[in-house]
Amino acid sequence: MRADAIARRRAEPDAGLPVLATELLGRLRRERTRVHAITNAAAQVFTANLVLAAGGVPSLTASAAEVADFAGRAGALLINLGTLDPERRAAIPLAMAAARARGRPVVLDPVFAEASPLRLAFARECLAQGVTALRCNGAEFRALSGTGAEAGGLEAFARAQGCTVALTGETDRVTDGRTGHAVANGHPLMARVTAMGCAATALLAAFAALEPGRVPAAAAAALLVVGVAGEIAGEEAAGPGSFQPAFLDALHRLDGPTLAERARVS
Amino acid sequence: MRADAIARRRAEPDAGLPVLATELLGRLRRERTRVHAITNAAAQVFTANLVLAAGGVPSLTASAAEVADFAGRAGALLINLGTLDPERRAAIPLAMAAARARGRPVVLDPVFAEASPLRLAFARECLAQGVTALRCNGAEFRALSGTGAEAGGLEAFARAQGCTVALTGETDRVTDGRTGHAVANGHPLMARVTAMGCAATALLAAFAALEPGRVPAAAAAALLVVGVAGEIAGEEAAGPGSFQPAFLDALHRLDGPTLAERARVS
Amino acid sequence: MRADAIARRRAEPDAGLPVLATELLGRLRRERTRVHAITNAAAQVFTANLVLAAGGVPSLTASAAEVADFAGRAGALLINLGTLDPERRAAIPLAMAAARARGRPVVLDPVFAEASPLRLAFARECLAQGVTALRCNGAEFRALSGTGAEAGGLEAFARAQGCTVALTGETDRVTDGRTGHAVANGHPLMARVTAMGCAATALLAAFAALEPGRVPAAAAAALLVVGVAGEIAGEEAAGPGSFQPAFLDALHRLDGPTLAERARVS
Repeated sequence: MRADAIARRRAEPDAGLPVLATELLGRLRRERTRVHAITNAAAQVFTANLVLAAGGVPSLTASAAEVADFAGRAGALLINLGTLDPERRAAIPLAMAAARARGRPVVLDPVFAEASPLRLAFARECLAQGVTALRCNGAEFRALSGTGAEAGGLEAFARAQGCTVALTGETDRVTDGRTGHAVANGHPLMARVTAMGCAATALLAAFAALEPGRVPAAAAAALLVVGVAGEIAGEEAAGPGSFQPAFLDALHRLDGPTLAERARVS
Repeated sequence: MRADAIARRRAEPDAGLPVLATELLGRLRRERTRVHAITNAAAQVFTANLVLAAGGVPSLTASAAEVADFAGRAGALLINLGTLDPERRAAIPLAMAAARARGRPVVLDPVFAEASPLRLAFARECLAQGVTALRCNGAEFRALSGTGAEAGGLEAFARAQGCTVALTGETDRVTDGRTGHAVANGHPLMARVTAMGCAATALLAAFAALEPGRVPAAAAAALLVVGVAGEIAGEEAAGPGSFQPAFLDALHRLDGPTLAERARVS
Repeated sequence: MRADAIARRRAEPDAGLPVLATELLGRLRRERTRVHAITNAAAQVFTANLVLAAGGVPSLTASAAEVADFAGRAGALLINLGTLDPERRAAIPLAMAAARARGRPVVLDPVFAEASPLRLAFARECLAQGVTALRCNGAEFRALSGTGAEAGGLEAFARAQGCTVALTGETDRVTDGRTGHAVANGHPLMARVTAMGCAATALLAAFAALEPGRVPAAAAAALLVVGVAGEIAGEEAAGPGSFQPAFLDALHRLDGPTLAERARVS
């Protein structure tokens, strides 16, 4: 491969991610992909409203008696460990098995894995059962990997687990150990609204369902969409209260030119 | 009865529904009717805020140990099957028995009855125990009735169950098998906010408590109120985020002239 | 002590409370105090968003298997009895023991204690285990104390329980039986939004953690902050829907001059 082709290939994600994000958003609005989310009590409403604003359809039941019916027919499954009550602990393996049996993506959000041994052990069981993507912050990543994300730790962990890892922070990093993306969009008010990260992960699940052959790019595209909607809302809002409706409005009307203009990706 | 009297009687719902809706909204604001709602996890907050914005008082406990105390003293009981965990499955029959023992209306919302056999069986048990009104969408109606709503199916089902049925959709239809109403108000953004239908059913329960002798008209009046508030909010909102606060504001200040002017009922 | 010194001391709370409120709000924003809230299903999201808007960090798990880990490491613990399911009934004593073992304040909100014997008995068990502060309305206070708040009933109850009592209403009254404060700020729309009082109590817990030697003043300062933010939001809002984001925005940007200018305290 000639040097300019290599350079072009490396630079490709810069231009490609906003285009992919636009395409996936359009498909979500047309196909109304359903995301089944077993998520924490504080995230359920905002997760449902984010998925609806983006164009998809949410479902939320965590009852062991029926979760396989719901997860098996959904486009993607989101597992969030923020509320880890006996019911959800029973439902999660059943839902994961149902989604995996149909080849649907399973995305794990190991909320507060660093804060209790129970959660860390449960998160590891989920990873061992097999997930398509893991979305976590720095503290959760360190607890799960026993290492930091610097100096290749993220890539090595993704390869070892055989999944895509999206590490969110000031700059979001996404990798499956081979290809990687970085997304620097976002706004400080996103950290002053509960469940923003939890809800964003539902869009990641939806995009992974629409683009199963390129999960790292799909995951990065979802984080780009959320980050750009957050920037627009942050500019319009007077504080964390008005931020939330402004975010859903911005997500609802987000289009390709806006994504292309605002994207800070590599 | 002379022909013009018959014609007047048939046309009555047209003019009568906005008047009835105005009257019931005024009474709700004065009497602060309490609606006890055993509802799904994603609907609890919005249901409570809708009831408060309309002028009533919500209560929400689903604990089997105390639900009879709460439901027995409430003006009306709403049963929503969206979260069907063991606790709610235990609490619902107790709450229904307490409400029925006091002659209070019981309104059933069989969310996703078509999506899992457990829900369908549970919804049928509720109907067998006896409900005042059933609020459902097309898919839920087909699952419950084993038939469609066309060609008299709705009226026959309502008569067979001995309850009022409110079938919501682009046009809402309400019947007890004898008298019927249709409400065409609403806005597309109502479908892009989670739990809108679930929360609207709480107003239906409140109005049924205030007008127990005319449940079909009270139910249609509630759907009219929600549809008109939704239209106003939809005209003011920039998307599904700002729609929700605008809807509660519109409901809070809704008055008779606005209802009369906007009503599209028959 | 000379007469003018006595007068100054008695008048001190008037000028002192807004100053204390400003100081505690500043410390909360810098120190990011974590409040662990075991609260009702309808209050979780708004409680988390209120704590975030004020500058703190919320956590919400109610799982008996991990609640001691979360409560033991938090700055303060809030116990709200609005959802009293078996899981929370098991978790609450464990969380209280963990917080008390570390000397962290425990604040009790005995929601609807007057409405069911189970709640009343459970609230009394919490008081017997030992709480730092109790936040209740008139009906809850009468159920718990077997008496009214008039003619010294509030002070006597606080002394007997050995805790601070914050009785909220049109004017909030706070006392530990020795020193007392009254806060008259607020707005009628605060009663038309679900969980406003429940969420406000989380700020009371945060302030008690920051000022453990003066819990009555800290509690009154928290109620002042919430009341002033509520007034500002009430003036800006078009109804109970737009009130909620406006309240969080106002809380987020609240400053000393605004508190000093608007405070109606004694």
